[in-house]
Amino acid sequence: MTLILSNDDVERLLTMPDCIEALEEAYVEMAEGRGISRQRSDCITPTSYSEDAIYGLKSMDGVVPKLGVGAIRINSDIVTNPMIGNTRRRVKIPAAPNNRYVGLVLLFSTHNGEPLAIFPDGVLQRMRVGATNGLGVKYMARKDASTIGLLGSGWQAETQLTAACVVRKITSVKCYSPNKDNCTAFAARMTQLLGIPVTPAAQPEDAVSGVDIVMCGSNSLDPIFFQRWIEPGMHLSSIKKPEIEPDAIRASNKVAVHTHDTSPMLVVAKGANFKEDTKEAGWNAANNINFKQYPNLPQLIAGYAPGRDSDDEVTCFMNNLGLGYQFAAAGSVIYKRAKEQNVGIGLPTDWFTETVHP
Amino acid sequence: MTLILSNDDVERLLTMPDCIEALEEAYVEMAEGRGISRQRSDCITPTSYSEDAIYGLKSMDGVVPKLGVGAIRINSDIVTNPMIGNTRRRVKIPAAPNNRYVGLVLLFSTHNGEPLAIFPDGVLQRMRVGATNGLGVKYMARKDASTIGLLGSGWQAETQLTAACVVRKITSVKCYSPNKDNCTAFAARMTQLLGIPVTPAAQPEDAVSGVDIVMCGSNSLDPIFFQRWIEPGMHLSSIKKPEIEPDAIRASNKVAVHTHDTSPMLVVAKGANFKEDTKEAGWNAANNINFKQYPNLPQLIAGYAPGRDSDDEVTCFMNNLGLGYQFAAAGSVIYKRAKEQNVGIGLPTDWFTETVHP
Repeated sequence: MTLILSNDDVERLLTMPDCIEALEEAYVEMAEGRGISRQRSDCITPTSYSEDAIYGLKSMDGVVPKLGVGAIRINSDIVTNPMIGNTRRRVKIPAAPNNRYVGLVLLFSTHNGEPLAIFPDGVLQRMRVGATNGLGVKYMARKDASTIGLLGSGWQAETQLTAACVVRKITSVKCYSPNKDNCTAFAARMTQLLGIPVTPAAQPEDAVSGVDIVMCGSNSLDPIFFQRWIEPGMHLSSIKKPEIEPDAIRASNKVAVHTHDTSPMLVVAKGANFKEDTKEAGWNAANNINFKQYPNLPQLIAGYAPGRDSDDEVTCFMNNLGLGYQFAAAGSVIYKRAKEQNVGIGLPTDWFTETVHP
Repeated sequence: MTLILSNDDVERLLTMPDCIEALEEAYVEMAEGRGISRQRSDCITPTSYSEDAIYGLKSMDGVVPKLGVGAIRINSDIVTNPMIGNTRRRVKIPAAPNNRYVGLVLLFSTHNGEPLAIFPDGVLQRMRVGATNGLGVKYMARKDASTIGLLGSGWQAETQLTAACVVRKITSVKCYSPNKDNCTAFAARMTQLLGIPVTPAAQPEDAVSGVDIVMCGSNSLDPIFFQRWIEPGMHLSSIKKPEIEPDAIRASNKVAVHTHDTSPMLVVAKGANFKEDTKEAGWNAANNINFKQYPNLPQLIAGYAPGRDSDDEVTCFMNNLGLGYQFAAAGSVIYKRAKEQNVGIGLPTDWFTETVHP
């Protein structure tokens, strides 16, 4: 049987501790060269959807032999480039039937090659971002870190918190978002979920003042955390490059990144209305930070670089780019749990295999 | 509905003329930069299948906006490296349940991103090789070419002939294979299929002497066609580099290749028992032919390079490496025919799409 799983299945099957454990094990494999990842590729063309939109076929592969799986994550996107305020932003359109997005993970066995499972990428995409930043906290924050200041209250913010709570004994959280209603509702929901006080703050500086860990979990392409807010011993964490002001990165005693892959392999067709996200391009041009100078997360976990040397140091982890490898590692757990719990729609594996030599 | 198709479906749905027409149109798009292809990648790791085997997760992407599709072709292989005679060869093992291979094509719409179809790659893999060499014949062989000498009588040989018969009025074929029984059976079957005499030859030089077109359609990694057999006006065609002796390539007046992508992007894990195919490595090292000096098939089709300038010239087409792009182009026809003829298993597209932003 090849399993078809839904986002709901994935959400039910994969706990954050499981996800973190699988990634941690997989990153050691990667640091040792036994687990491998193929750089993301983006094929960009025009689309008949609309003149100002583009079509993107994106893929990334990863194989973790120790966990017995290889994975391919595929996105098939319709993307527009509207001006929002003064900046051009990329906005994915749910253009597939029933107003849906298209992102898939295919999981294969490294033992016999068979297709094990196919599932949408959305829930796992968020879980692995959380788990990755959680590992940043585990290997860089002070051992006794117990308070978090969270900037953001959207889709990514939740898994940032749940992951941090797995790796440190967190006793309280302050959160800030420019969207006050959202922030209040988020705080109430997370208080219930985590069993610790999660309090909305009136200003971002209130949220981050006096805390051990600052987590940026926003969709902002402008800096939201600044050098002037740094306090001794803090751990800074971000889910995309622009969130932490470059001066704050430079002021940190230890910096680590998720991966030394700096950007996807890009193939753009003639006629594609492809515009670089001006904010991101601007950030890259203006700040000129060479990410390869910093250790990556696998090196940190495998002990090739220290996360922190003293309680006073300021540490900074940047989750700079995703890897197909994460989908393989976490996917192995999802598949194992699905089999244990008899979850998913089983299709004949013969539908996805062949007698003909390929 | 997302269609699940079988190799039998593909074989029934896709005719060689359709396949050639779709590829021809797509190659023009590629030459003009409007259609794009992402270089094949191979991730190679150890496998628990056996100590001397390796696991390979291979993928290639292509998008043809004019035909409305993008495709990803995925292979999930268990491969061994036995010594056969004096040479080390790669042998794929059908290790998936029911002794099957794993190769898949996923087809997506460039209009709205939706997953259109999933099908095994085996039959199409052979069809597109045939169609590609057929296009080599169309753009390089003499217009009045009517006779073929075919070296090989296996899996690839059949589509080589059917493709050539689509693009030229072929009146007779001689074929040779070291496996006499296979060759005789093949000749009888093809005579029936094509309605023209296909005759087994006792020696390879008998098969190719006096013919207008020489087609190599073998699985040999040794040369099977030699310079001394060249006659004025001949078109030479091969489905892999070593088939035509390098001196014969150099002696040709016009040479073209399928693609300027020279090799896959290779990522090999530590501990993988990965051995280069010694024959292929030896060929590359010994012959040092720069494939980028020759026009590629898209350039030939789009008119950027001449296939032949006179009836006396010797032309040579080498199908040096496959592209995901071919699966997109031919896949668009397969999907269209499947919808017209109501073929395939329709699964809810919602299974492969999502409401969650990926």
